[in-house]
Amino acid sequence: MVPRYSRPEMTAIWSPENRYCIWFAIEVFAAEAMGRIGMIPAADAQKIRAAYDADVLGEIDIAAIDEIEAVTKHDVIAFLTWAGSKMGPESRYLHQGMTSSDVLDTALAVQLKQAADLLIRDLDELLAVLKRRAFEHKLTPTIGRSHGIHAEPTTFGLKLAQAYAEFDRCRTRLVAAREDIATCAISGAVGTFANIDPAVEAHVAQELGLTPEPVSTQVIPRDRHAMFFATLGVVASSIERLAVEIRHLQRTEVLEAEEYFSPGQKGSSAMPHKRNPVLTENLTGLARVVRSAVTPALENVALWHERDISHSSVERYIGPDATITLDFALARLTGVVDKLVVYPERMQKNLDRMGGLVHSQRVLLALTHAGLSREDSYALVQRNAMKVWESDGQLSLLQLLKDDPQVAEKMSAEELERLFDLGHHMARVDTIFERVFGAAEPKI
Amino acid sequence: MVPRYSRPEMTAIWSPENRYCIWFAIEVFAAEAMGRIGMIPAADAQKIRAAYDADVLGEIDIAAIDEIEAVTKHDVIAFLTWAGSKMGPESRYLHQGMTSSDVLDTALAVQLKQAADLLIRDLDELLAVLKRRAFEHKLTPTIGRSHGIHAEPTTFGLKLAQAYAEFDRCRTRLVAAREDIATCAISGAVGTFANIDPAVEAHVAQELGLTPEPVSTQVIPRDRHAMFFATLGVVASSIERLAVEIRHLQRTEVLEAEEYFSPGQKGSSAMPHKRNPVLTENLTGLARVVRSAVTPALENVALWHERDISHSSVERYIGPDATITLDFALARLTGVVDKLVVYPERMQKNLDRMGGLVHSQRVLLALTHAGLSREDSYALVQRNAMKVWESDGQLSLLQLLKDDPQVAEKMSAEELERLFDLGHHMARVDTIFERVFGAAEPKI
Amino acid sequence: MVPRYSRPEMTAIWSPENRYCIWFAIEVFAAEAMGRIGMIPAADAQKIRAAYDADVLGEIDIAAIDEIEAVTKHDVIAFLTWAGSKMGPESRYLHQGMTSSDVLDTALAVQLKQAADLLIRDLDELLAVLKRRAFEHKLTPTIGRSHGIHAEPTTFGLKLAQAYAEFDRCRTRLVAAREDIATCAISGAVGTFANIDPAVEAHVAQELGLTPEPVSTQVIPRDRHAMFFATLGVVASSIERLAVEIRHLQRTEVLEAEEYFSPGQKGSSAMPHKRNPVLTENLTGLARVVRSAVTPALENVALWHERDISHSSVERYIGPDATITLDFALARLTGVVDKLVVYPERMQKNLDRMGGLVHSQRVLLALTHAGLSREDSYALVQRNAMKVWESDGQLSLLQLLKDDPQVAEKMSAEELERLFDLGHHMARVDTIFERVFGAAEPKI
Amino acid sequence: MVPRYSRPEMTAIWSPENRYCIWFAIEVFAAEAMGRIGMIPAADAQKIRAAYDADVLGEIDIAAIDEIEAVTKHDVIAFLTWAGSKMGPESRYLHQGMTSSDVLDTALAVQLKQAADLLIRDLDELLAVLKRRAFEHKLTPTIGRSHGIHAEPTTFGLKLAQAYAEFDRCRTRLVAAREDIATCAISGAVGTFANIDPAVEAHVAQELGLTPEPVSTQVIPRDRHAMFFATLGVVASSIERLAVEIRHLQRTEVLEAEEYFSPGQKGSSAMPHKRNPVLTENLTGLARVVRSAVTPALENVALWHERDISHSSVERYIGPDATITLDFALARLTGVVDKLVVYPERMQKNLDRMGGLVHSQRVLLALTHAGLSREDSYALVQRNAMKVWESDGQLSLLQLLKDDPQVAEKMSAEELERLFDLGHHMARVDTIFERVFGAAEPKI
Repeated sequence: MVPRYSRPEMTAIWSPENRYCIWFAIEVFAAEAMGRIGMIPAADAQKIRAAYDADVLGEIDIAAIDEIEAVTKHDVIAFLTWAGSKMGPESRYLHQGMTSSDVLDTALAVQLKQAADLLIRDLDELLAVLKRRAFEHKLTPTIGRSHGIHAEPTTFGLKLAQAYAEFDRCRTRLVAAREDIATCAISGAVGTFANIDPAVEAHVAQELGLTPEPVSTQVIPRDRHAMFFATLGVVASSIERLAVEIRHLQRTEVLEAEEYFSPGQKGSSAMPHKRNPVLTENLTGLARVVRSAVTPALENVALWHERDISHSSVERYIGPDATITLDFALARLTGVVDKLVVYPERMQKNLDRMGGLVHSQRVLLALTHAGLSREDSYALVQRNAMKVWESDGQLSLLQLLKDDPQVAEKMSAEELERLFDLGHHMARVDTIFERVFGAAEPKI
Repeated sequence: MVPRYSRPEMTAIWSPENRYCIWFAIEVFAAEAMGRIGMIPAADAQKIRAAYDADVLGEIDIAAIDEIEAVTKHDVIAFLTWAGSKMGPESRYLHQGMTSSDVLDTALAVQLKQAADLLIRDLDELLAVLKRRAFEHKLTPTIGRSHGIHAEPTTFGLKLAQAYAEFDRCRTRLVAAREDIATCAISGAVGTFANIDPAVEAHVAQELGLTPEPVSTQVIPRDRHAMFFATLGVVASSIERLAVEIRHLQRTEVLEAEEYFSPGQKGSSAMPHKRNPVLTENLTGLARVVRSAVTPALENVALWHERDISHSSVERYIGPDATITLDFALARLTGVVDKLVVYPERMQKNLDRMGGLVHSQRVLLALTHAGLSREDSYALVQRNAMKVWESDGQLSLLQLLKDDPQVAEKMSAEELERLFDLGHHMARVDTIFERVFGAAEPKI
Repeated sequence: MVPRYSRPEMTAIWSPENRYCIWFAIEVFAAEAMGRIGMIPAADAQKIRAAYDADVLGEIDIAAIDEIEAVTKHDVIAFLTWAGSKMGPESRYLHQGMTSSDVLDTALAVQLKQAADLLIRDLDELLAVLKRRAFEHKLTPTIGRSHGIHAEPTTFGLKLAQAYAEFDRCRTRLVAAREDIATCAISGAVGTFANIDPAVEAHVAQELGLTPEPVSTQVIPRDRHAMFFATLGVVASSIERLAVEIRHLQRTEVLEAEEYFSPGQKGSSAMPHKRNPVLTENLTGLARVVRSAVTPALENVALWHERDISHSSVERYIGPDATITLDFALARLTGVVDKLVVYPERMQKNLDRMGGLVHSQRVLLALTHAGLSREDSYALVQRNAMKVWESDGQLSLLQLLKDDPQVAEKMSAEELERLFDLGHHMARVDTIFERVFGAAEPKI
Repeated sequence: MVPRYSRPEMTAIWSPENRYCIWFAIEVFAAEAMGRIGMIPAADAQKIRAAYDADVLGEIDIAAIDEIEAVTKHDVIAFLTWAGSKMGPESRYLHQGMTSSDVLDTALAVQLKQAADLLIRDLDELLAVLKRRAFEHKLTPTIGRSHGIHAEPTTFGLKLAQAYAEFDRCRTRLVAAREDIATCAISGAVGTFANIDPAVEAHVAQELGLTPEPVSTQVIPRDRHAMFFATLGVVASSIERLAVEIRHLQRTEVLEAEEYFSPGQKGSSAMPHKRNPVLTENLTGLARVVRSAVTPALENVALWHERDISHSSVERYIGPDATITLDFALARLTGVVDKLVVYPERMQKNLDRMGGLVHSQRVLLALTHAGLSREDSYALVQRNAMKVWESDGQLSLLQLLKDDPQVAEKMSAEELERLFDLGHHMARVDTIFERVFGAAEPKI
């Protein structure tokens, strides 16, 4: 966890305080269920639940627990010892028939579920901003580029609609990943429920909003966590895509959009004129960081027999790092899109700089329709297009075509001019917006 | 693609023949739709469709297409030129208003969908075998191990039930990944439908069993492919887990199960007695191979602007490699599980070798119930357990406890003996089987 | 291995023919040494060596060997059986006291050494081309960019000198990796030389140009291979860096350099004017492919005990794939750099488009020297720089500064003009070239 | 950084205090050089150096610097402003002609060099412990295992000698990586030395024990860092290998060695008898963590043009995480090896449990020497070996061979007995120790 790339709410999920609170909840709900089925005395179970409802632990004394752990070298026992000191003799019924992993793994599931909820909320905020700005620029013409080379016109709103659709898919994936991870295991040392009734697991699961793990083996199987972190890696890659797009748009030679640059900000200690796309460059790096959790999460799946503990240290890193970083990155991206300074005039200027080459495909098609073979049409267009290209946009493709006798044979000047109409490229924008947003106009 | 780790059906999906057949289908269905909406002459469109239905291309002449591509340096144009040579003049209406990626990306979607279908079928076969063997060994006692150390008894059927549940989750994920990938884009140079009606895309999608891509930008967005390959990586990791389990079971000192060893097989050129778990070791390696596709697939997401072509070379490797290898690995694992030689007597022998230590937790619980504090119970059990441990299983924990006066104070010999009953650990197996398979007994 | 990204020489290294030839050489040299030390009859050993020198095997009959392997399920035994059929009874002394891995691992070492030699040669060719073009453009001014934003002038030659220095480091690393991998193990079933004299290993090592592995355990330890593939991953990343640079330079708005575009080539089936940087985009993808070998190679290190065979399947993929792809990529990059079309006028035009902002740091420094505080100098420069920036390069920073009374107080117009001299940025180019190439002028 | 996997010395390298101290040193040494060449007044330069020598900054006031950065949004400017407040007017000559990255990148080089020094020291400590224990168990017989299956005898000392050789290679690689990373760049905004004399860089480099970067471009090229982190990934994988070995040895069924288990330690909250190899399991996980830095480091190489800043956020994570974790892991592994409890009797017992099968290869060879064909010898040995195998080690291979008339024809009982002599497998241990340690006996 790097403080500058962390936000408090997500960070709190990974605090020792939150972890211990979840541990206590698990132990208490388990005891409550055990009381009901007579595994432990009902009265003691009720006392335990009452202590929980009365917030008997109060402020968690991390230092005291650490001190006990230094002796026992076992974190759950250390916590239970401390918690017991805050309670009456009923505390001895805590953790009955349970194994540490029942607590640890279920607690991790709760933390990952909490994290997923935040990330889904982050995505919702990003989606809202993308939608607003997409509609704002629905018909702002801009050049579409393939291979970094001008291709055909599109609109800036379509670029944002693409991002919206992509992050909407990410949301769906994250909801699935959240469901995958949100399971509860209270099944004992090797998952046989030898010393604990499945009813305990069922009760704890329900109280915590989890589903019972169908078959656990002391631990919740790590394919679930692998899927979770793999999904975060995909979301991070989508962040990278939009960040790279903005970095490209802010290049000096392109400058079609720019990250918001606050008045007091210094771009460079040496070059006072510079406005660098540092936020999106940062997001590009953070995407690499989130992605780096995927491989260790996949390597964590193949634990030995019923479990080994090699996954644990990995999760101490990637659990907080991947979720905190992704939360930060989503929020940063939302801010960037929200305040992105867009330059429609510059977009138009760039669009025009190729002397109309971007309309060449329409000419090609029209010539084919006018009866030329595809090969001949292609040669005819390319011949003129190359002249424009070599003039660095000083020559006009429209004019050259008008002047080309072989073209003139097939097509009038008016027909040619119609082919160069930008509006043509906007005709389907509404259709696409309807697909993406369910409507061509924003709902008020 | 490594031939020895390939099966013909999956390999055929990635053959040039299959790719060209899909390309042709896309072009034909697109032309058919264009004919209907008057983009091209209806009669020519019908001729094109009729040619397709009559299998006009026949055997695909790869060499001829390669020869054309060597000149044009463009694969789709090369194919269309060759296909045109098999058809009448109507062929000039093929590919109208389309861009190469309309064909390439939609074709890749079809290939990945075909691959996903095979993988899902593979999983179904693996699941069937796992289920059969799980029920076969539902009550075969075996020691559960955490950290590689004997923990508590479980059953071999439960191990297989766990694997079943894990691969069942993998199946669900694969179905979602298949849906994610199965989209169709016929949207032109930058995805604006400037020169092509969305109805064309809709028709092609329907004919091919795909859904239209809501917003494409010449290419289908690569977050879909990233999710697909990430999912394959998770499945591979689950394969690794089961493979590692079997390798452990086949260790000389454990030998609870063994890969089937055919009579003629030689284990080693030097040591004729060796029976090595080479299939599952191989699966461990193949899992690494499939996983290695995940990172490049994630790196492919952030294409520049509307598209760059950096993803293409990556997909030429990982498309075939990851799917062919995973198909092979799933089939190999199915074979291993199907024919796995299981040694229940050896499982029992290993279970007994710890002198009853595996029952210590039950004793611990019982002592607590009998009124001792958790700490005292723990100390009492550990004191005796350590003696057994140090005797290398020669001493019996049950006997030592019977002989321990402090234990005797709390518990009779009969009570102690009940705690050492193996049946206790089997009591919930039916419950777990019901969760996993929907029934505690196999359906006939 | 993808044929279109493969060159014959590297591909041949990974052919079964080459592998069998190396196996035979190992077996023969081993037998020769055994003959000398009396492990096998000297006369038979000499016959074996004579058969080798007479090329007794001739064309390798892959099909015949495959047929034997189908029965024995053991590749080395299959090969030896076939090779024996070409020889007299002396063949029974082949492989005495050896284990398959003695042959397999040493053979892999030879293949990787051969591959490394090719890659080093590739790098030498790339370095030669980079050097030539660096000197050609040593003083071609171009804008240096940080964050994609114009920073200060540099030269195109310096960009290439940087690439040269980077690939020169890659060469050093590759030489080290080659040394790391080039070891020989003929040490028996678990590496104890129980049945074979270390002198055999020494002789085979010497004949093959390898060093004896100090301590092997049936296999050569895989940390060596991990280091080898990690090094390939670094080289691939350096390829990506230069490829990305060229892709940026070829962008429509920048167009300072361009991949060579042969006359017959079609850029797009739809847009005949397009010249796309497809080679460098391809290299970007191939870099991802080569890098994807690193993680599985690292995962291969932790083999169980003296060895397991999980590494083997991984190496069947990454051995050929990573080396063949990297060989192809280096050669492709060499071709791209060799024929790169450079546009110095366009570089100058881009350099000028910012209205002189790129000289702002020099002004800043001069004002500080003229007695202003750093903060005041910064504010003064930024005030004027912002105006130029907002004019999209239409205003001239030099003119604005001349007209700024606070600046004029400190600095004359002549002084200001001197600060805008481009030559200033070229003054150290010779120094840097001397560092990189050992001389400021190319040797003839 | 996870506190429980961190040691203070390495952590301190990554503290803000250390970073600011290095920044200050760079700025001061640069000013000193500038004073000498007249770039800034000599007297001011001397004052700056004197202030440094007098430790003018004292305790670094992180909070104050953070406060300034909150306004300027620029870390180096913030630090310089604060440092300036501790000095006289000479402070305005700090950072003259330099760009932030001159400071940042050179400082990172110093930190990585410091980290490498610690890691090399860690390796030296590990090597010393491995050497001691290797000699201690040089002739302790143990079974060598391939595929997890008993192969032939080896010694426990040889296992440790292998680890020694592997970590010795890691040391060599780390020394190379340290050299790769230890460069200094003070070359200005795009690396042209436009506003700064290369003599400044040379002086700073010398003072800090770095070499000047031949050609930098505002930043030090990231292939160096990629190589550094890739090397850490290889070291981590070697740690994993030894950790996995120990985990295997501690398995209940094997139990040939065990992590030291302190008297107060509790193995499990549920199973008091358990002694789990938790340290080596932890190391297995930590290896995954360190390795996860490799891919993002490789992705950092391809910065745009002269630089973008995407690498920076990545390095804020992996710089501390990979080095701190690896330092911790090496120290932990050293402790594990140092105190490893070894059970030679158990090793002997396991060695004997296969009824002599481990000697089969020697018999095979001897039969071949006695005139049988390889195939016949193989069949003969396998026939008897299979019986032993199926008896689960109850039958003795030696006895069966003695009783086999076809064997008896070729070999006397005495000859057979000689083949089963364990000493035979120890004969070359001295040779291997000489190769690895330079001597067969430990130096006193």
